[in-house]
Amino acid sequence: MLNGEKKLARPLRWAMVGGGRLSQVGYKHRSGALHDNTAFQLVAGAFDIDADRGRDFGVHLGLDADRCYADYRELFSRERQHEEGIEVVTIATPNGTHYEITKAALEAGLHVICEKPLFFTSQQAREVKALAAQKNRIVGVTYGYSGHPMLLQMRQMIASGEIGEVRMVDMRYTHGFSASDSADKFEAQKWRVDPAVAGPSFVLGDLSTHTFYISQLVLPELKLQSLLCDRQSFIASRAPLEDNAMVMMRYHGGAVGRMWTSSVDAGSMNAQQIRVIGSKASLQWCDWLPNELRYEVQNQPSQLLHHGMAYLDQAALAEDRLGALHTEGLTDAWANIYLRCALAIDAKNRGDETALANLIYPDIDAGLEGVRWVENCVRSADSGAIWVNYE
Amino acid sequence: MLNGEKKLARPLRWAMVGGGRLSQVGYKHRSGALHDNTAFQLVAGAFDIDADRGRDFGVHLGLDADRCYADYRELFSRERQHEEGIEVVTIATPNGTHYEITKAALEAGLHVICEKPLFFTSQQAREVKALAAQKNRIVGVTYGYSGHPMLLQMRQMIASGEIGEVRMVDMRYTHGFSASDSADKFEAQKWRVDPAVAGPSFVLGDLSTHTFYISQLVLPELKLQSLLCDRQSFIASRAPLEDNAMVMMRYHGGAVGRMWTSSVDAGSMNAQQIRVIGSKASLQWCDWLPNELRYEVQNQPSQLLHHGMAYLDQAALAEDRLGALHTEGLTDAWANIYLRCALAIDAKNRGDETALANLIYPDIDAGLEGVRWVENCVRSADSGAIWVNYE
Amino acid sequence: MLNGEKKLARPLRWAMVGGGRLSQVGYKHRSGALHDNTAFQLVAGAFDIDADRGRDFGVHLGLDADRCYADYRELFSRERQHEEGIEVVTIATPNGTHYEITKAALEAGLHVICEKPLFFTSQQAREVKALAAQKNRIVGVTYGYSGHPMLLQMRQMIASGEIGEVRMVDMRYTHGFSASDSADKFEAQKWRVDPAVAGPSFVLGDLSTHTFYISQLVLPELKLQSLLCDRQSFIASRAPLEDNAMVMMRYHGGAVGRMWTSSVDAGSMNAQQIRVIGSKASLQWCDWLPNELRYEVQNQPSQLLHHGMAYLDQAALAEDRLGALHTEGLTDAWANIYLRCALAIDAKNRGDETALANLIYPDIDAGLEGVRWVENCVRSADSGAIWVNYE
Amino acid sequence: MLNGEKKLARPLRWAMVGGGRLSQVGYKHRSGALHDNTAFQLVAGAFDIDADRGRDFGVHLGLDADRCYADYRELFSRERQHEEGIEVVTIATPNGTHYEITKAALEAGLHVICEKPLFFTSQQAREVKALAAQKNRIVGVTYGYSGHPMLLQMRQMIASGEIGEVRMVDMRYTHGFSASDSADKFEAQKWRVDPAVAGPSFVLGDLSTHTFYISQLVLPELKLQSLLCDRQSFIASRAPLEDNAMVMMRYHGGAVGRMWTSSVDAGSMNAQQIRVIGSKASLQWCDWLPNELRYEVQNQPSQLLHHGMAYLDQAALAEDRLGALHTEGLTDAWANIYLRCALAIDAKNRGDETALANLIYPDIDAGLEGVRWVENCVRSADSGAIWVNYE
Repeated sequence: MLNGEKKLARPLRWAMVGGGRLSQVGYKHRSGALHDNTAFQLVAGAFDIDADRGRDFGVHLGLDADRCYADYRELFSRERQHEEGIEVVTIATPNGTHYEITKAALEAGLHVICEKPLFFTSQQAREVKALAAQKNRIVGVTYGYSGHPMLLQMRQMIASGEIGEVRMVDMRYTHGFSASDSADKFEAQKWRVDPAVAGPSFVLGDLSTHTFYISQLVLPELKLQSLLCDRQSFIASRAPLEDNAMVMMRYHGGAVGRMWTSSVDAGSMNAQQIRVIGSKASLQWCDWLPNELRYEVQNQPSQLLHHGMAYLDQAALAEDRLGALHTEGLTDAWANIYLRCALAIDAKNRGDETALANLIYPDIDAGLEGVRWVENCVRSADSGAIWVNYE
Repeated sequence: MLNGEKKLARPLRWAMVGGGRLSQVGYKHRSGALHDNTAFQLVAGAFDIDADRGRDFGVHLGLDADRCYADYRELFSRERQHEEGIEVVTIATPNGTHYEITKAALEAGLHVICEKPLFFTSQQAREVKALAAQKNRIVGVTYGYSGHPMLLQMRQMIASGEIGEVRMVDMRYTHGFSASDSADKFEAQKWRVDPAVAGPSFVLGDLSTHTFYISQLVLPELKLQSLLCDRQSFIASRAPLEDNAMVMMRYHGGAVGRMWTSSVDAGSMNAQQIRVIGSKASLQWCDWLPNELRYEVQNQPSQLLHHGMAYLDQAALAEDRLGALHTEGLTDAWANIYLRCALAIDAKNRGDETALANLIYPDIDAGLEGVRWVENCVRSADSGAIWVNYE
Repeated sequence: MLNGEKKLARPLRWAMVGGGRLSQVGYKHRSGALHDNTAFQLVAGAFDIDADRGRDFGVHLGLDADRCYADYRELFSRERQHEEGIEVVTIATPNGTHYEITKAALEAGLHVICEKPLFFTSQQAREVKALAAQKNRIVGVTYGYSGHPMLLQMRQMIASGEIGEVRMVDMRYTHGFSASDSADKFEAQKWRVDPAVAGPSFVLGDLSTHTFYISQLVLPELKLQSLLCDRQSFIASRAPLEDNAMVMMRYHGGAVGRMWTSSVDAGSMNAQQIRVIGSKASLQWCDWLPNELRYEVQNQPSQLLHHGMAYLDQAALAEDRLGALHTEGLTDAWANIYLRCALAIDAKNRGDETALANLIYPDIDAGLEGVRWVENCVRSADSGAIWVNYE
Repeated sequence: MLNGEKKLARPLRWAMVGGGRLSQVGYKHRSGALHDNTAFQLVAGAFDIDADRGRDFGVHLGLDADRCYADYRELFSRERQHEEGIEVVTIATPNGTHYEITKAALEAGLHVICEKPLFFTSQQAREVKALAAQKNRIVGVTYGYSGHPMLLQMRQMIASGEIGEVRMVDMRYTHGFSASDSADKFEAQKWRVDPAVAGPSFVLGDLSTHTFYISQLVLPELKLQSLLCDRQSFIASRAPLEDNAMVMMRYHGGAVGRMWTSSVDAGSMNAQQIRVIGSKASLQWCDWLPNELRYEVQNQPSQLLHHGMAYLDQAALAEDRLGALHTEGLTDAWANIYLRCALAIDAKNRGDETALANLIYPDIDAGLEGVRWVENCVRSADSGAIWVNYE
């Protein structure tokens, strides 16, 4: 159980690029990173494409004005000269800038925590992976939902055979906030449907990469063999970017899967769900009841596991923050992801590759896999929704 | 609101073929047909492949022993000579016999109510449709779930534009009772995985035809253009019949759809669900909470409609039996379907084609569409899970 | 599992007093009694205070017009002279008439099935109990909800110690249909708030007697020692009859309880719930999900038991009608209650007191206890909501 | 919407008494207070009755060792001499020490934030209220659940008449973690059943004060007139302290209420709920789905309101942190309460009594009311569970 006691000798000096006043996700990064003030310390930032607004924002977060920079280039170069300069930077800008900023950060000797989808192409991700290795730096990816402890419970139960042999994975991440095209006029949404900024996809990258990573987290052994994706642009002006997509999957070993992702699922407030079906039982988790795990053994009463209970696996309990009956939310999940990233950075800094290998966190490979997932989906969809080998 | 008062001048004289002591579905037919004793009267039967057991069963249902026959041939020929012989017969036998028994019943001048899936091929269904027309008889199909009044509410709301333009239909009918192969040893299950008796499919025909018919009921204007089906036999001995299948659909006009059907969805007790997504709102119904309808308008509070409430459409209220707060179950739904079939038979007998045209009931066309659905799914699956035009 | 096969040598000849065209509950009686046509056969009735309307109604139920009588007196006297006269009568009239009609029926040698609350006073109930014993006849009470099989499961689990020692019983039966006084203008509601017709209570008798009987069904050993009731008439014109009441209970042995009953619980569609808390675990059932039973063992995952599953107790499975995954509703519950009453009548007719003693059904004692419950609640409330010994 | 930007010119210098390594609640205080690092800054503490363990803990929170004190006396006296000494202290110790520590803190010129139940007697609370007024300091009380924004939505909807006239308030806060006496052996639980440390009650003070405060928050106009409480010690060794209690309430103006609080509600994971019933509609909120609000208008579809949606009241949206679809948890609620306390302290420091009067936060009066609530409940229970005027 976590209670805020430090896991690192001292907090990492941290900055953000993006995530300013108009950003919805920026606050999730700060809430997660600063949850306990023992893992990260926010000391600098280039929060906004509007430099003045960004500086003002930083000051209102309590930063020194002279460590609120106009852009990432200034941030990296000036902090490098700072006696107590930043060690790690979060990139919470639109997708199209992730690649160049990540490279620049690594070149500047920084560890990186980046928003998903990581980049536009898996080629870029492989390149950055090599660069990170060369620079001896960590690249983490904020699949924030994946920090809910019940997902570790799910992982452990599957690993220990409690559902039998895996047969099917059913995934979904949908909402309806883009049901009308009026949504596209808001700044926070506008760039998401512009291929130049968003990349090759809208909802596949924006939403389904979260759930896809969760499937990798709970099913580390399961590997995709082929998939088929059909995508739609129900608001025509969004084409070629999709606002709805359906995917069928075939895994090595015979299991199959489905994904549905959408921003036109009108009225839905139940966004993300994963169900893993085994030969004996199924496990189901959803992000609107993140503290519960449904465990359904065929021919037995259905079970509901609750967070913080002593019957859970140590892995799930280790990241519990509030205890049973006390509802944890998305902030707690983000805090777990940020803490895992801090531990990874610390291990990397200390050269402790064993510790690093034992950490479960959304690393550069997880980011690469998300990009690869989108790439394969788009390739299938753009070929007429045909089966493609997962490459 | 229904209260058991007669809708016909007198109950129809009714018999069953199949549905005997070991059958689970037989009782649903009887409960539905006899609910009010004003639509049907059970007077004869050939309930069992074991003639003695069938006769004993019929007697225990209160029939005269001499109207409990050894098989359908004897039933039809002997009842024809009876002064007060049967007028309508229900066929609740394994799939492989539906075609020949239905034809024999029509030839014997009987109206027919048959279990789903109707036949093995749409060609058979077209042939029987022609025969029924020639004989001036009704063929009804017991899509029992479709009798829940909230589905008529759903139909009316979609028709009156309350969800906007239809964009997607998401369907599911799954359970886990065949997760292990031990299930196949039971007599009630054995034939379902034998192609000679079950036909070209297992769960596609056994389960998904129900939900597919519901989609046609609530979306009468929506027509399939093409589909893609991937089917699996997780218990290898079931091959070529599938115990799990995933379907993607494209409708004329741009809407898309999904279906998942399975009997290996281990532990699931939530079987059947349909969600229809429009440009403004969605409607969702499931068979484990059949008295509710979720109505989710984007950017408004989610709504839950309850059966029997005055705010519902007249079509939904007309078939309500118990009133709000009083839980209706599957028996009530079957009773509605049987009552609609009785009204159709009565209209046909009276030559009232106008009344017949205004009735919403699962008729021979609904049966044919179910067969066609399975046919197209199997054709796609057996061609490598490719897109096929819906033929 | 029930499938409609007869449990009696022949169906009982049955009539109804009340329950006519304007009655909501009348159809529940008929649906329950006639479910399988092997327990009861409706042959006569005095359905309505308006004799012509009642006769017309009976004819529309399929009865002979000359067995549709003007009132219960004519019904009893004329049927007595009938060669195949009625054997049992259901009384579904307003409360104020139950006592005299029940007595008349018993005097006429009939078995009786009566609506709740049985009578106005426990003295009346004791008198009728004596009369029934003298006449060797059964008096059953239609606590219809109590027929849901999962309540037998609950009873068995408590009896076998699966929750430990019982500590608390929390009950509720509320709705909001009388939130406004406009409800009182409808004929079906009007008499319920008139003490001359309804008796000493409104919701205590109309609603809470159901849940109180369920508590007795699942906890046959638990006996009330004292209670305290506070009742309100939020619509002043209903006074002295209450539209809302709260009760605290103390049982012999140290357990405690609560009841809340209301018809002004505005907007509520979740009517009736019982939770029994033991030293190790709790069991909870509600009437809007009647096919489920929540079993919550402290420090273990919560469990949900589903009807029709093989892991249930034989008592619960014996009355299952549709099988797992197939939603049973209130009609099925009423059918179970009517079938149990038929078995009781048959046993009584055969003089088989052993069989009778082993039957669990809502008998005259259950009816008497309901009246006694209301009496004690009203006595407490009218004394200023003080503790009264349960007399 | 909150995003971490500062609401105060600079964070308040803050210390904790209690809430150390073995405390479950301590982390909730720190997570809440430090959420954004712009309202509070943790600079000192006396975390533990074991001074060494407390110092070690503080160091692990990132504090200077020499500002980790042995006890509250040392904390207050030494910090007073510190150039940048603490301005506000949180008291998260067992109940029995709240009174003396709060007084000492006020005497030391500190603002206080204290755990509930505030003190043992309302007399103590009135005395401290006077002292706080004299010292010009704030005393806040951590009714943490009350920080969920949907409760402000509930308050606004009731105030604006959306449920009509209030008729009943039904409250509950129960769990089963003390179902067995083995729970009493743990240090975190032991003192709670010792009257010398816990005060006059166990669950009434520990649990129900939360829900009682919520009722005051959403119904500021509703005042108790009388109540009746029956309390039990199902684990006998806990007597006279109760592990279960049931309360009936009568409010001025005719509304009534109920409270049930328990730590022996075996297996329950659904802890806290409040339902407010009006003449037209009801509102219901529960702490295990804190981002939803059920709005049930009689004779209309049931509505579910979700946090973060534009249709909500500005008061609810102002404290939203994550936006719709992103689950907020108890940490977010605590952060809101701490932020409100910081704003109150700041207003008090600035002498801005107008701002202070407009702030809705759990102040000394809210703390006093909680103590008074317990006092009245205990007085009733110890007099034989009789009605007592609310004094």
